[in-house]
Amino acid sequence: MLSFKEKAISLLQEAGIELNGKNPWDIQVYNDKVYEHTLLGGTIAFGEAYMDGWWDVERLDKFFEKIFLLHIDEKIESPVLMFFNLKSFLFNLQKGKKSFKVGEVHYDIGNDLYSKMLDKRMVYTCGYWDAFQDIPAAKNLDEAQENKLEMICRKLRIKKGDKILDIGCGWGSFIRYAAEKYGARCVGISVSKEQVKLGNQTKGNLPIEFRLQDYRDVEEKFDHIVSIGMFEHVGYKNYRTYMEIVYKNLKEEGLFLLHTIGSNVSSVATDPWINKYIFPNSMLPSAKQISKAAEGLFVMEDWHNFGIQYYHTLMAWHSNFEKYWPDIKNHYNKRFYRMWKFYLLSSAATFKTRRNQVWQIVLSKHGIKKGYKRIV
Amino acid sequence: MLSFKEKAISLLQEAGIELNGKNPWDIQVYNDKVYEHTLLGGTIAFGEAYMDGWWDVERLDKFFEKIFLLHIDEKIESPVLMFFNLKSFLFNLQKGKKSFKVGEVHYDIGNDLYSKMLDKRMVYTCGYWDAFQDIPAAKNLDEAQENKLEMICRKLRIKKGDKILDIGCGWGSFIRYAAEKYGARCVGISVSKEQVKLGNQTKGNLPIEFRLQDYRDVEEKFDHIVSIGMFEHVGYKNYRTYMEIVYKNLKEEGLFLLHTIGSNVSSVATDPWINKYIFPNSMLPSAKQISKAAEGLFVMEDWHNFGIQYYHTLMAWHSNFEKYWPDIKNHYNKRFYRMWKFYLLSSAATFKTRRNQVWQIVLSKHGIKKGYKRIV
Repeated sequence: MLSFKEKAISLLQEAGIELNGKNPWDIQVYNDKVYEHTLLGGTIAFGEAYMDGWWDVERLDKFFEKIFLLHIDEKIESPVLMFFNLKSFLFNLQKGKKSFKVGEVHYDIGNDLYSKMLDKRMVYTCGYWDAFQDIPAAKNLDEAQENKLEMICRKLRIKKGDKILDIGCGWGSFIRYAAEKYGARCVGISVSKEQVKLGNQTKGNLPIEFRLQDYRDVEEKFDHIVSIGMFEHVGYKNYRTYMEIVYKNLKEEGLFLLHTIGSNVSSVATDPWINKYIFPNSMLPSAKQISKAAEGLFVMEDWHNFGIQYYHTLMAWHSNFEKYWPDIKNHYNKRFYRMWKFYLLSSAATFKTRRNQVWQIVLSKHGIKKGYKRIV
Repeated sequence: MLSFKEKAISLLQEAGIELNGKNPWDIQVYNDKVYEHTLLGGTIAFGEAYMDGWWDVERLDKFFEKIFLLHIDEKIESPVLMFFNLKSFLFNLQKGKKSFKVGEVHYDIGNDLYSKMLDKRMVYTCGYWDAFQDIPAAKNLDEAQENKLEMICRKLRIKKGDKILDIGCGWGSFIRYAAEKYGARCVGISVSKEQVKLGNQTKGNLPIEFRLQDYRDVEEKFDHIVSIGMFEHVGYKNYRTYMEIVYKNLKEEGLFLLHTIGSNVSSVATDPWINKYIFPNSMLPSAKQISKAAEGLFVMEDWHNFGIQYYHTLMAWHSNFEKYWPDIKNHYNKRFYRMWKFYLLSSAATFKTRRNQVWQIVLSKHGIKKGYKRIV
């Protein structure tokens, strides 16, 4: 029988990765416990081993690209993962107070980190780098995010004075943009106290409002509704409710734009490491799960997939994170630094290898009368 | 208790239709048996009553738009429909010899009818009328169909010499176009003897081949695969098999473009009148059914909805049908004329009211490496 180390080396070789090799994607192991830990504990143990410096690699993104392309990670049957999926199946992890947990754990982590890592508008979702219509390709992260916001306004066909709801508004980048450029009146809801506080402090004279609110508590009619990078926190047990809430709060002729990361296959939970350290109680929806949740409520007008753009966005965030780390490192420790790097670069690899997607889905209640003309 | 006539009048009034009224959408009833027949027999009885001249209306399309917008048809609980759905649930209606039935009943109806009704390339699927990229909006049916074929070639990124499979090739409009304009080598399969015969007779020197073959019998690798308006005949019990067959016959880097009519909600069978007179054993897929069938096999690269374009296409076909009816009417009887008109105009109304959609879905096996850039 193979030892843990032998089995690990064999799996790595399958992906073209050499133990202590010289390529930028080759793994350097500093603590031999990593083999047993990972083969028994799965991605959570592997990620923790990285955080603790048991192993390293020059290009974490390239390393994960190789792992994901050959589906090496799926060959490790982890009891942790099985328990984790079971837990998601048995409980509703995104209900009541649990819905606010991600706000506290992730989004309240400190606005200084995000203000350094993100673009000037602090958009914490996938940017859009390609040219579209009269908009040229983005030359940097600021432009990629601004172009994405512009694309959403166009897809929603926002007119001056329209009342817009943004479910999961973050630091308000979208509602600010829609108010500034299109004269929309906007309500943004978030489960992060820090986001809402900062949003209301800095909104100036814009006709926008930040609310600390669960989407299930909204009861108000809007011309259009948007949700950008929040559906990942909803949980499959709540997808139908989510769609019903949007339906209820949307005017008859309104449009709903759902921007979300998507998975090629249906699941009930996210990766356990991501769940523990980055996004508690999150999970990625599949096309089947979304179609099922929307069926009978909405007409699907357009389904745009630009997942590869998240690779570029995450690499830009990582580059900012490394560049500005010296400025903020006093607020965090070394383990946090490695955790964050692991998060950004392993995520980048999931998009580069096309395992994960980014979807913008435009839905209407009865079908746009003369047909919806898509852009891009 | 209301009589059948009273109940029918009340349902019509709900939709804004007056019995023997003066508006172009008002119904003129010539045989009072229509009320009882329709309320007990559903759409099949209503359609047959039209074919037999029991009722008429100046603008059949407008009449149906009003019916569909208010969902009046769904308020008639027909035992026929229930039986029909049960049959679809119990049996696989699109298996073995049954798969060829639609070929005999519908597509072999006589090429003279189709050559008059359709555009010059004889494309029997939804055209594309809007402008896209450098292609201006279509001014007539010929252009709408040619632009649609061009759009598909661009979406598939066809290069000279590419080997393309067209599942359900009709009279070969697509494979001819792809061979003429892009230098592709094409195989088209069909379940209609007439289509295959005519196709092979008229293919000239083009590198195209027509085969009388069920999709399940294809065993050959192609650069890209396309299926335009054939999935409506596959049946939900075969959706997964269909996707597996496409997967098996597609090269690793290839694209599959699925062009199909889609329904907002999942069902197991089509309308009974359509089934009996127009498309035996057909049914419209939902987004949920397609996503489910493709999951784990394909990455969904793009999902384009342009259902409203089928309204324009069907109205153009109807206009040609009326115009050329004098030339072909010796081959058919009056009942056929009314049946065909009923089919074209009631179908047009399903798209105008956005009850049905037209989808072009681009799928890849592993995700296009640098991302799929959609057009339009």
